[in-house]
Amino acid sequence: MTDISRIRRPELKDKVMSADEAALLFKNKMIVGSSGFTKAGDSKVVLKALAARAKQEELKVTLITGASLGHGTDAALTEAGALSKRMPFQVDRVLRDHINKGDVLFQDQHLSETAELVHGYIGEIDMAVIEVTYIEEDGSIVPTTSVGNSVTFAKLAKKVILEINTAISPDIYGIHDIFLPENYPLRNSIPIISPDVRVGRKSIPLDPEKIAGIVFTSITDAPADIAAPDKKTIAIAEHLIHFFENEVKAGRLTDRLLPLQAGIGKVANAVLLGLGNGNFHDLTMYSEVLQDSTFDLFDTGKLRFASASSITVSAECYNRVFNNLEKYRDKMVLRPQNISNAAGIIRRLGIIAINTAIEFDIYGNVNSTHIAGTHIMNGIGGSGDFARNSYLSIFVTQAASKEDKISHLLPMVSHVDHNEHDVDVLVTDFGLADLRGLAPRERALVIINNCAHPDYREELLSYFNRACELRQGQTPHILEEAFSWHTRLRETGTMKPAAKAEAKAPKAEAEVCA
Amino acid sequence: MTDISRIRRPELKDKVMSADEAALLFKNKMIVGSSGFTKAGDSKVVLKALAARAKQEELKVTLITGASLGHGTDAALTEAGALSKRMPFQVDRVLRDHINKGDVLFQDQHLSETAELVHGYIGEIDMAVIEVTYIEEDGSIVPTTSVGNSVTFAKLAKKVILEINTAISPDIYGIHDIFLPENYPLRNSIPIISPDVRVGRKSIPLDPEKIAGIVFTSITDAPADIAAPDKKTIAIAEHLIHFFENEVKAGRLTDRLLPLQAGIGKVANAVLLGLGNGNFHDLTMYSEVLQDSTFDLFDTGKLRFASASSITVSAECYNRVFNNLEKYRDKMVLRPQNISNAAGIIRRLGIIAINTAIEFDIYGNVNSTHIAGTHIMNGIGGSGDFARNSYLSIFVTQAASKEDKISHLLPMVSHVDHNEHDVDVLVTDFGLADLRGLAPRERALVIINNCAHPDYREELLSYFNRACELRQGQTPHILEEAFSWHTRLRETGTMKPAAKAEAKAPKAEAEVCA
Repeated sequence: MTDISRIRRPELKDKVMSADEAALLFKNKMIVGSSGFTKAGDSKVVLKALAARAKQEELKVTLITGASLGHGTDAALTEAGALSKRMPFQVDRVLRDHINKGDVLFQDQHLSETAELVHGYIGEIDMAVIEVTYIEEDGSIVPTTSVGNSVTFAKLAKKVILEINTAISPDIYGIHDIFLPENYPLRNSIPIISPDVRVGRKSIPLDPEKIAGIVFTSITDAPADIAAPDKKTIAIAEHLIHFFENEVKAGRLTDRLLPLQAGIGKVANAVLLGLGNGNFHDLTMYSEVLQDSTFDLFDTGKLRFASASSITVSAECYNRVFNNLEKYRDKMVLRPQNISNAAGIIRRLGIIAINTAIEFDIYGNVNSTHIAGTHIMNGIGGSGDFARNSYLSIFVTQAASKEDKISHLLPMVSHVDHNEHDVDVLVTDFGLADLRGLAPRERALVIINNCAHPDYREELLSYFNRACELRQGQTPHILEEAFSWHTRLRETGTMKPAAKAEAKAPKAEAEVCA
Repeated sequence: MTDISRIRRPELKDKVMSADEAALLFKNKMIVGSSGFTKAGDSKVVLKALAARAKQEELKVTLITGASLGHGTDAALTEAGALSKRMPFQVDRVLRDHINKGDVLFQDQHLSETAELVHGYIGEIDMAVIEVTYIEEDGSIVPTTSVGNSVTFAKLAKKVILEINTAISPDIYGIHDIFLPENYPLRNSIPIISPDVRVGRKSIPLDPEKIAGIVFTSITDAPADIAAPDKKTIAIAEHLIHFFENEVKAGRLTDRLLPLQAGIGKVANAVLLGLGNGNFHDLTMYSEVLQDSTFDLFDTGKLRFASASSITVSAECYNRVFNNLEKYRDKMVLRPQNISNAAGIIRRLGIIAINTAIEFDIYGNVNSTHIAGTHIMNGIGGSGDFARNSYLSIFVTQAASKEDKISHLLPMVSHVDHNEHDVDVLVTDFGLADLRGLAPRERALVIINNCAHPDYREELLSYFNRACELRQGQTPHILEEAFSWHTRLRETGTMKPAAKAEAKAPKAEAEVCA
């Protein structure tokens, strides 16, 4: 596992130590920054060793990452009581439970903004833990499968522990584009004018004096759970591809589309796979994560270039990519997340952003993060970075789930991550609502008619019509009733009204007040 | 009024006509784009003539402007039934009533995005109405007191009616910086790296063939209503200036601060005036509107440069500025609103954004637009453009109003325009909450303790504590109760609980669950 040739700056060879020794470098109440973005390029052993130490003694840290970690690291840290605060994103079931109980504080951040926030007022980064492929002669470091916030951590942290992962071939050199906007907070422009432009260096600058320890590992990233497309995700993908085809016909898009961003998950995967079958070509991605579908699209020849901050793929795809780097090397680039998700670049490139909603409402507000308005799932991630500034902001979700007891289209969302101003298109397995140019009362009709599960359509129309009549307004609502579906689900196990309640409900009107 | 020397391209002199004649150029169902941004540089006569014509015959248009119009134009159009749809902003009482009744459709847009939206899917702009100072030899046009969306309208409209306003001196030439990003939607970067950088030309390019009519006017902009600072606004300003002073002490800001954006209204004016008395110097603004306080700050010597899209000032200040253009000319620039409010530039420059909230909640979500969740006031304007991408996103409002019967801090806002991810600092007359780096449960305590009106503090703490206990979660809420303050206000005329309800309410706990 130890491959000393990966340390190309000789005097650093003395810094090699075990993960347990590295864990001793942490102190209680430290602020720790670590690599790792959607399970890719995360610390494999040092944070786990920190967790083991925290089981023995009082050792709580604030942990800031790129995004989520793999290999159960967040669970291990949580169970050891090692986390006082966590940001900006997580997907771990154990950590999530503790966050929702209030045991661990979680700040849910736009992924582009974490680098902004650690420049100052979150407090100084005491220690960074960064997975790297190797260390260059000049002390700079070559990342592995993600860049995340590592450039910022390397710059700002007082001390740095490096994990050299020998499972990653040094051939990875060159796929990273390391650009750090200078002179924060008053900066120059970032000169990316198309997804394939490289604007930085190939390794992350790091003052060798700050390296406190070097630990060797040889552990691949935790694989992504890739679910095969099912009937619903295929339906969503078909609606969306049909929409793109119509946009091409209308002359608003070409058959190259525009640079694509796709959130994580099986819907996004299904959509990208669907694009592989459509009459599109020469596609590009400007996204935060490259998933299996990205490489499938490369293999079909439909995708020309992809830019992101990490590669998060299944075990099969991992081998396909990292054993054939020469095949993909010139087609992709990994950037820091404050560049992959930069507001100005997203608008400049005219991105088509496709992200997943937990629920959305009749006016097109989207909840991406909270169950029942209170319990967080993962976090907002990059969805806000992309949705706000994209050319087309698209949110997808199934219309209903759990034997249709839960409608994902509601009178009012219980938590707002993306409001009506930032949502252009909504898609469910039942249809697509194109909201561009529509006022709220128009949006409500299009959304209900096109996207609702049929079991809920009538009651949604009833709510809208009664709100128009009773309360009026730009955005008609009956506040006392706005969350009644959530309450009913909690009390009865379904959002569907009981037979009795149903009999009482006024019948839906075909005419509407808009 | 007619000053034919203002038409420097000879063959256009034949296009001069009366406003009534120009009004005949409109057809039913047209999409009309017009100049005007926060009452500055709007159409003074043609849209009014359109309203007069619409009283006589079926003539409904979609009207897209920069932002709000002055001189009761929106009211006249509304009363004449001339508006089918309006975007992206308005402040007119009559129009607002009709929007809230559902008679006029209103799309409330981020002001930076209207230019994006009219590139295609809102439909072609049939007619533009643009107020100008004069027409250049090459047919290009020199705007008056705002730029707004006029550059986009001049480019995209099929036909253009110009209002030459002789109340504006041709000396205004040079204060505009006209830059239109090319190749939409895939664009180059906008090379603005500080508020005082000029990147464009001084007049708006316009194909003379598109000019359908030229109308002369000599009417100054409707003056801004400037309220003198009162006890509450002075208190808010003092809290904020104290905060800035502490940021300077902490080394996170210099005494030059960072480029300032300030929303419209008396709080923003009070804050800017307060900065004139503080130990700050060499200040800059990168905002959307320049108000009286901007020019007062120029006069104190504290402000070095200001960039915006319009000048909207009182009658006194109007005369001070436009009769002394040589004094202010080199200190300011007016840009198109898709540049003044561009996401990438706002982040690049590290803006300090100060905007007004209608209400905010214990987790820091902000409602800028809707009363009781349903009735729109004005619109989101540029607040979202700035809040999302600024270095410091600050929202201000009074803690309570209407004899304290209304608390502006609530368990949950009835409409979300800016969510917790986009709000760094909240300020009321009672204090300031610095939310940077805080998780929702931490935010709740800081907000309640620092910003609540004392009459409501105990009940807010009670809600928070009961929500933590009953429902838990990252963002504890009791959905059935979340809007109970709004409901109580509607039913009883006050958000304060009745004596009986008060006796029932559990006492506030000092300890909290975070």
